Amino acid sequence: MKIVKVCILGAGTLGSRVALQAALSGYQVSVYDIKQEALDSSVKVMQKILRQLIKLNQIQDQSALEIVHKITFTLDPLEAVYDADIINESVLEDIDTKEKVWKLFGSLAPEKTLFTTNTSYLLPSLFAEISGRPEKFCAFHFHDVFYSKIVDIMPHPGTDPKMIPMLEDFGKSLHQVPVLVKKENPGYIFNSMLMAFIGAAGRLLTSEVASIEDIDKSWMVNFNMPMGPFGILDNVGLDTAWHVTRKMPDRSSQAFAGLLKQYIDKGKLGEKSGEGFYKYPNPAFREINFIR
Amino acid sequence: MKIVKVCILGAGTLGSRVALQAALSGYQVSVYDIKQEALDSSVKVMQKILRQLIKLNQIQDQSALEIVHKITFTLDPLEAVYDADIINESVLEDIDTKEKVWKLFGSLAPEKTLFTTNTSYLLPSLFAEISGRPEKFCAFHFHDVFYSKIVDIMPHPGTDPKMIPMLEDFGKSLHQVPVLVKKENPGYIFNSMLMAFIGAAGRLLTSEVASIEDIDKSWMVNFNMPMGPFGILDNVGLDTAWHVTRKMPDRSSQAFAGLLKQYIDKGKLGEKSGEGFYKYPNPAFREINFIR
Ligand SMILES: NC(=O)c1ccc[n+]([C@@H]2O[C@H](COP(=O)([O-])OP(=O)(O)OC[C@H]3O[C@@H](n4cnc5c(N)ncnc54)[C@H](O)[C@@H]3O)[C@@H](O)[C@H]2O)c1
Ligand SMILES: NC(=O)c1ccc[n+]([C@@H]2O[C@H](COP(=O)([O-])OP(=O)(O)OC[C@H]3O[C@@H](n4cnc5c(N)ncnc54)[C@H](O)[C@@H]3O)[C@@H](O)[C@H]2O)c1
Repeated sequence: MKIVKVCILGAGTLGSRVALQAALSGYQVSVYDIKQEALDSSVKVMQKILRQLIKLNQIQDQSALEIVHKITFTLDPLEAVYDADIINESVLEDIDTKEKVWKLFGSLAPEKTLFTTNTSYLLPSLFAEISGRPEKFCAFHFHDVFYSKIVDIMPHPGTDPKMIPMLEDFGKSLHQVPVLVKKENPGYIFNSMLMAFIGAAGRLLTSEVASIEDIDKSWMVNFNMPMGPFGILDNVGLDTAWHVTRKMPDRSSQAFAGLLKQYIDKGKLGEKSGEGFYKYPNPAFREINFIR
Repeated sequence: MKIVKVCILGAGTLGSRVALQAALSGYQVSVYDIKQEALDSSVKVMQKILRQLIKLNQIQDQSALEIVHKITFTLDPLEAVYDADIINESVLEDIDTKEKVWKLFGSLAPEKTLFTTNTSYLLPSLFAEISGRPEKFCAFHFHDVFYSKIVDIMPHPGTDPKMIPMLEDFGKSLHQVPVLVKKENPGYIFNSMLMAFIGAAGRLLTSEVASIEDIDKSWMVNFNMPMGPFGILDNVGLDTAWHVTRKMPDRSSQAFAGLLKQYIDKGKLGEKSGEGFYKYPNPAFREINFIR
């Protein structure tokens, strides 16, 4: 089966990026959302990304800015899914919302359409049945599309195995590195490891072994990285990290979730709120002397 | 107190590096070992490092090669510790050996001498009493000295707090980034986080969620790093990782230790044995197409 038309559900942060990459990769693209404002701001987000890519010389062709006009933005589900070969769903990370969306598109999509979800922590098996075509349902999870070019392919037990090589090829055609998550696993591959090392950083802090700065320095110097676990948390958002951490049953995750909650209650959500573990726009870890 | 003379115990991998950095930083340095061959090979190791540093332009002065001749290499404990302001111990990672060494040097060292250990997973409180001067005893733990320039300062409950700022200054004078481990913690700061994320990688593998290659790809692409957890394990040595992992009580660490043991029993210890999770000298993860 050849993929020609890609239908993106949800015109938010991630949906906009996937849609843009699909258009840049030569696919016909439609973007669906329930809010007109979301569609309007998606156009602007895409143009901003394109200007950045041109500035970074990742795109040479100024006319690439025009690509946005080839994308169909619509509030009409039928128009969005018309003749679509694949759907990639990026609506709100909420079970009820995703159930509603998959029920709707399960009934409207052409028979050929493959169904994929970008859910970060929910599992494809939660929505496979309600979509009406579990065998064509699979998680296809991007990270940030342009900077982190990993795409996770995570089938649920009922996914037709033939979907996997198709999604691998599709992922490569979108300039991503496809990786296979052979079994359903919340957090796929990377987030499992990320949360484990961030959890260890949290334990070091809550058990008063070391300071935020010294924990970050250790990571940054040893791995030659521009930020450590607390810098990363500020970047991810402490609220997002708290939603994940508080569901983990072990004691030290609970202690860390408790600490995150204290910051959140003070309005410290990380970079987006101006303060988290560090103060922005000039956090200490970006100062030249931090690791000298 | 001003540090002028540094005495290094153990002329192996780490002792040689610390001694060389101390000499390059202007200190008088003596190196003690029980084996003449260890002392002889230490001289060669230092010259090799110096040639690399000159090649990498980290040292401009060709005459730096001469610095090795200013270091005293000796089998005589009394000569080694004569007038020393500080000892940094890097003998074999073995309780009995370290006890023996600290008992000996505790009785021979001048009263002024500060005692520090480089132990990786043992704790300073294990040797503080036997050294005869627990208040002057502290862990001072380097990583690789020239590439990873972190030095952990980890007091035991009996360490005189005045030692900490002294060691911070001393660490900086050796061009390291000092970090404080406020309480004894096996693995200090970095190794705690490293083992947590490697443990998560091990869980993903032993529970058959993903392949070695896909786990490494996820880490490498998302963090823009030259290797992932299994590449790192090959580099650290599977035997070293097994020694740490098998002591961890939880089930998934045990499962991972079991997997490491299977590799070790087949002689696959990582890069040093020519094979671990990857084959050397040309492991798959270094190929250009690995993350394309
Ligand atoms: N942001 C990321 O970096 C990222 C990365 C990987 C995966 N994800 C996943 O992608 C999904 C979207 O995340 P996001 O960050 O883009 O969120 P977002 O809040 O930026 O966008 C969500 C969009 O969904 C729309 N929406 C809500 N209900 C809808 C409905 N019933 N029908 C159609 N559209 C609806 C909203 O109007 C909004 O535009 C989530 O499942 C998230 O876990 C996000
Ligand atoms: N290699 C590293 O990267 C590294 C990093 C941090 C910490 N460490 C720690 O440093 C210490 C040394 O590690 P290494 O990798 O250099 O080991 P190594 O095996 O290369 O060197 C150990 C040296 O100790 C000598 N030795 C043994 N018994 C002795 C004794 N009784 N008196 C004097 N010398 C004796 C040996 O002859 C040998 O030269 C260990 O505690 C280790 O955990 C090593």
